[in-house]
Amino acid sequence: MVVVMDLRATEKQIKDVKKRLEQLGFKTHLIKGVERIVLGAIGDRKEIISSGIEMMPGVEKIVPIMKPFKLVSREAKSENTVVQVKDLSIGGNDITVIAGPCAVESREQLLETARLVKAAGAKAIRGGTYKPRTSPYSFQGLEEEGLELLAEAGKETRLATITEVVDEKSLASAVEYVDIIQIGARNMQNFHLLRAAGRINKPVVLKRGLSATLEEWLMAAEYIMSEGNYNVILCERGIRTFETYTRNTLDLSAVPLIKRLSHLPVIVDPSHATGEWRLVAPLSKGAVAVGADGLLIEVHPDPCKALCDGPQSLTPENFSQLMKELALVASSVGRTLNLGGQNL
Amino acid sequence: MVVVMDLRATEKQIKDVKKRLEQLGFKTHLIKGVERIVLGAIGDRKEIISSGIEMMPGVEKIVPIMKPFKLVSREAKSENTVVQVKDLSIGGNDITVIAGPCAVESREQLLETARLVKAAGAKAIRGGTYKPRTSPYSFQGLEEEGLELLAEAGKETRLATITEVVDEKSLASAVEYVDIIQIGARNMQNFHLLRAAGRINKPVVLKRGLSATLEEWLMAAEYIMSEGNYNVILCERGIRTFETYTRNTLDLSAVPLIKRLSHLPVIVDPSHATGEWRLVAPLSKGAVAVGADGLLIEVHPDPCKALCDGPQSLTPENFSQLMKELALVASSVGRTLNLGGQNL
Amino acid sequence: MVVVMDLRATEKQIKDVKKRLEQLGFKTHLIKGVERIVLGAIGDRKEIISSGIEMMPGVEKIVPIMKPFKLVSREAKSENTVVQVKDLSIGGNDITVIAGPCAVESREQLLETARLVKAAGAKAIRGGTYKPRTSPYSFQGLEEEGLELLAEAGKETRLATITEVVDEKSLASAVEYVDIIQIGARNMQNFHLLRAAGRINKPVVLKRGLSATLEEWLMAAEYIMSEGNYNVILCERGIRTFETYTRNTLDLSAVPLIKRLSHLPVIVDPSHATGEWRLVAPLSKGAVAVGADGLLIEVHPDPCKALCDGPQSLTPENFSQLMKELALVASSVGRTLNLGGQNL
Amino acid sequence: MVVVMDLRATEKQIKDVKKRLEQLGFKTHLIKGVERIVLGAIGDRKEIISSGIEMMPGVEKIVPIMKPFKLVSREAKSENTVVQVKDLSIGGNDITVIAGPCAVESREQLLETARLVKAAGAKAIRGGTYKPRTSPYSFQGLEEEGLELLAEAGKETRLATITEVVDEKSLASAVEYVDIIQIGARNMQNFHLLRAAGRINKPVVLKRGLSATLEEWLMAAEYIMSEGNYNVILCERGIRTFETYTRNTLDLSAVPLIKRLSHLPVIVDPSHATGEWRLVAPLSKGAVAVGADGLLIEVHPDPCKALCDGPQSLTPENFSQLMKELALVASSVGRTLNLGGQNL
Repeated sequence: MVVVMDLRATEKQIKDVKKRLEQLGFKTHLIKGVERIVLGAIGDRKEIISSGIEMMPGVEKIVPIMKPFKLVSREAKSENTVVQVKDLSIGGNDITVIAGPCAVESREQLLETARLVKAAGAKAIRGGTYKPRTSPYSFQGLEEEGLELLAEAGKETRLATITEVVDEKSLASAVEYVDIIQIGARNMQNFHLLRAAGRINKPVVLKRGLSATLEEWLMAAEYIMSEGNYNVILCERGIRTFETYTRNTLDLSAVPLIKRLSHLPVIVDPSHATGEWRLVAPLSKGAVAVGADGLLIEVHPDPCKALCDGPQSLTPENFSQLMKELALVASSVGRTLNLGGQNL
Repeated sequence: MVVVMDLRATEKQIKDVKKRLEQLGFKTHLIKGVERIVLGAIGDRKEIISSGIEMMPGVEKIVPIMKPFKLVSREAKSENTVVQVKDLSIGGNDITVIAGPCAVESREQLLETARLVKAAGAKAIRGGTYKPRTSPYSFQGLEEEGLELLAEAGKETRLATITEVVDEKSLASAVEYVDIIQIGARNMQNFHLLRAAGRINKPVVLKRGLSATLEEWLMAAEYIMSEGNYNVILCERGIRTFETYTRNTLDLSAVPLIKRLSHLPVIVDPSHATGEWRLVAPLSKGAVAVGADGLLIEVHPDPCKALCDGPQSLTPENFSQLMKELALVASSVGRTLNLGGQNL
Repeated sequence: MVVVMDLRATEKQIKDVKKRLEQLGFKTHLIKGVERIVLGAIGDRKEIISSGIEMMPGVEKIVPIMKPFKLVSREAKSENTVVQVKDLSIGGNDITVIAGPCAVESREQLLETARLVKAAGAKAIRGGTYKPRTSPYSFQGLEEEGLELLAEAGKETRLATITEVVDEKSLASAVEYVDIIQIGARNMQNFHLLRAAGRINKPVVLKRGLSATLEEWLMAAEYIMSEGNYNVILCERGIRTFETYTRNTLDLSAVPLIKRLSHLPVIVDPSHATGEWRLVAPLSKGAVAVGADGLLIEVHPDPCKALCDGPQSLTPENFSQLMKELALVASSVGRTLNLGGQNL
Repeated sequence: MVVVMDLRATEKQIKDVKKRLEQLGFKTHLIKGVERIVLGAIGDRKEIISSGIEMMPGVEKIVPIMKPFKLVSREAKSENTVVQVKDLSIGGNDITVIAGPCAVESREQLLETARLVKAAGAKAIRGGTYKPRTSPYSFQGLEEEGLELLAEAGKETRLATITEVVDEKSLASAVEYVDIIQIGARNMQNFHLLRAAGRINKPVVLKRGLSATLEEWLMAAEYIMSEGNYNVILCERGIRTFETYTRNTLDLSAVPLIKRLSHLPVIVDPSHATGEWRLVAPLSKGAVAVGADGLLIEVHPDPCKALCDGPQSLTPENFSQLMKELALVASSVGRTLNLGGQNL
């Protein structure tokens, strides 16, 4: 950490800041420049956060040097984390595609989708049962009934299952039924929920908040890991910008950046990012090309009748076609995308 | 709602869309232009959300005409809502200033602050007891112990009390101790929490999310109101933009806009918006001048030693001075800011 | 400047960076922490920009300490700059209101507006003659003919005159006719135009770019000042954010921040920021309350028939009413807004 | 266009708006809903812009239905535009890579880079000679001398040449020396420059502005085309968002969107978007995978000594390696990237 003193800071003020830093356990280095005096402080960043240094007379600003995250960082663990779910590995050389409807609507809808996405090469089935909706008047999900259907679909197709939770109660229910828990963008800084997710023994997909910086996103993962759950999968799903042609702006730069900063797997959700099915195919390819470990894609057997987010869902036919194209892109960047038996 | 058909839409496609709209209960009007055919549809916007019209062949896009919010809207209720808390009115002609520390740290700290802000003219004391913090390693709040201290401070000073809740459990606790419940920016779209807050019989301050549009913010208030709690106070606290000199960008335009769109009171939190105490005074004046009904200001007896957000807290002296200046600004725009007996 | 070395940087890499810094004329300080080694470097920031230090093996990142601007900074000149135009002072205790139509449309329109805004207390008349329009099919301005009309209006009413220039050619013309030159948001980083504006002997109003940080905005002013023209007036006019209810988001925090960072006067343009006349009055008051030195307000004798930006223009009646209200707000924050003799 | 009337609009107000629309040449359709009355208006969008309808009593808002761009739109021309420059085609099946240093620094630097990027498979050499720099104290380019060097490099290597212009004067010079003219992000709405570029007979690369929506970007291209120059190549180079880990946020969704909205070729500049060479390779692959027609990549023989933007430049070795990898990605999405003779 570097403490920059004001141009007009007095000798006494500099001395006071130095003393306070040393009380806090920092080793200090005084650097006198022509226009500024700065104090380099070596120690634990945690301490400085509530130390009040920034408010001491004569201090212009504090410049942190160290990154605030620990367990999630590549420095803490240099090799990639590979999350194991049954016989599925997320974060290895094989690209993992998770597919399914925005919301679980009925037994027929879910089982049909599960069979179709399995046939196309997906490795996991997704389906919302607790839906965070902008309007209180929109469909809010089947809740526990939906969880049972997901479990049934997983059992029948042997796909891994994943669903979003929105509070501790839905987390407690979901953990009984599904293989992977998802925390959505709107709850990325619901810290109580993050802590609770850190105490379960199932992997967690953590979506990036709409206005979360990479650092905040990694800190949210740190919350989960700090409670003991190391199986965190990060999911980029678009950030909020001024552009309105797409629902959000998919930030594909985040993928190689997160790969450098962290050892955790990163997947991409082009369906929610864009809100439009016609953009899902090109952006899925882009995501694989920049190095994503997987994709989360909305597929609905009849998008026109979807109770939620129909316009961003692929038909099973489009999804199947996309999977074949994705396998080619994966191969072009040295990855695999195993489409399963139907391609033998 | 207007359905814009593609330039190359066939007669049959237009007919199909018309038919589907009518099935959904819409009255339709076909408008043939030189380059486009559009279908005006009159009916309930709720229906359209999951109708799949947008995905029908030949449809280019859907343009909603009606606003999605109902109970919060100025059209639903033309006169201003004035929220009553004990003998305090929020949303009337008098400007309400709520002040206090970011976090309740100790009995001494809280009681001292309560007395000082009361003396300066504040009408309510704030203090965080459940703290949503970016880092899991930061101070997380005194929880129930803090609530008891708030209740004591309220009793002694006869100030109204307010604290932030982060989930249903903290809501259930807080509602026993304090007069006003706050839902923070990070939970603005925690819909289960919003619904729960809609079932209590105490007023709720709803902060705007960091990346929430005005429409999303009003829809969040609609969640609370749709459960029966009509005492909602909106609080602008800055949005996330590219500018990094301030923590967030305080959007003062939101104040007159919300006043036009809705009947609910609007207050402003310049402390969290800017993250810097030196900006709190000018932006507080700006907020009053644009028409805010109140302010939420951080005050700490010793900001250098605050466990949380010291750099944005005013000292009691600065706060007292600011209150006098605010009373002048309030008066200049036809409002009052009653500083209490000490100013007689 | 602080050079942060990679966790795995070798002794040799550290030595090489140190050597290179010293070759560039920096004095260096080596600080060894537990997890990082950093090199403090004292010297001229200009040098570092193209020094390649950031790319040397073992370097993780460079953290600049010094602000890049010089002439515009409060440190370079501690007292406020007051720009003199004829008998008008911008940046002193009196608030300067500049008013007029978005575009000069005709002699009648301009002269009528000039007389009316003068009567209401405005000190300068604005009017666009070279219009930067988003669409090539929109009205593009009267060009030189408009400048002549502005000069005539200025002569008759003794108001100062101001118009926007868009390139060196329009600058060369405008400087012959008007008292103050305006550089618009879209040209804030048109560096050749900034340099040219630095070589004229008339004041320049420099609007903030739609996506310009405070630092970039001040650097743009630095361009003008570095050529010798010290009479620069900064104008906040809204930044681009995700919010779409207003055209842009007026950043009123920028006003007190610029006042701290720089000695230059700051004015605010609520008309362009919001794009809506009903928001102009409250945001004008907000701007004065946060400390702006002046306002730039669109006024049109018949906004419904304006060739440009009618929806954001005030009628002369509304403007006159607003001026009286602004005088009260100015007074409440210790400033004056002299409405002129006609109001006695 | 749809005119939405206020809930309380009177019969007379509705009639007046209808009449005014008809005077302007619109055919109108009155649609009476339960809560709103709307007027559908069929006619030319150009007219409405300055018609003042939005300000008439009783009008709540205007909802445009038609897109404002004409010549650039896919509807105006359904087949892809392929820009021909000597024997190079941009926008066809082959991916075009343009490479070179941020700034032309010397004859040796430029010729060496040209030879190396040619050998690696680049089809054009870029090099800045008029540099728009944030600071007036940074290197500003070799100007005409740089143009001569570019021409020489083009002649020797038979690469097409491209350079950025910043005003009409530099445009007039550059058009004499180089094959393709570039207009940078900061000048995307420098409308006089756009018009001037519309009158030359060389192709123009138009970069997206930092805060430009897709619609504004296409309207800027419309400016060029409206003057008669139809050879416009759009270049996505990142937009400004709240994320600070990258210089800007590369918006790869823009590529398939622009392809749908327009017939013009689209290329991507990952070097400027990210500001960091380590992100250039993955994002280049991502750009090709989403459907870009080409790339603009910074390459410098010695990035550590670059006078400008060294940290984002690839070494020739890295560039050569990247080209081979890009050829694989291109092939995986059905495109070609011809690496030239050295790969035979």
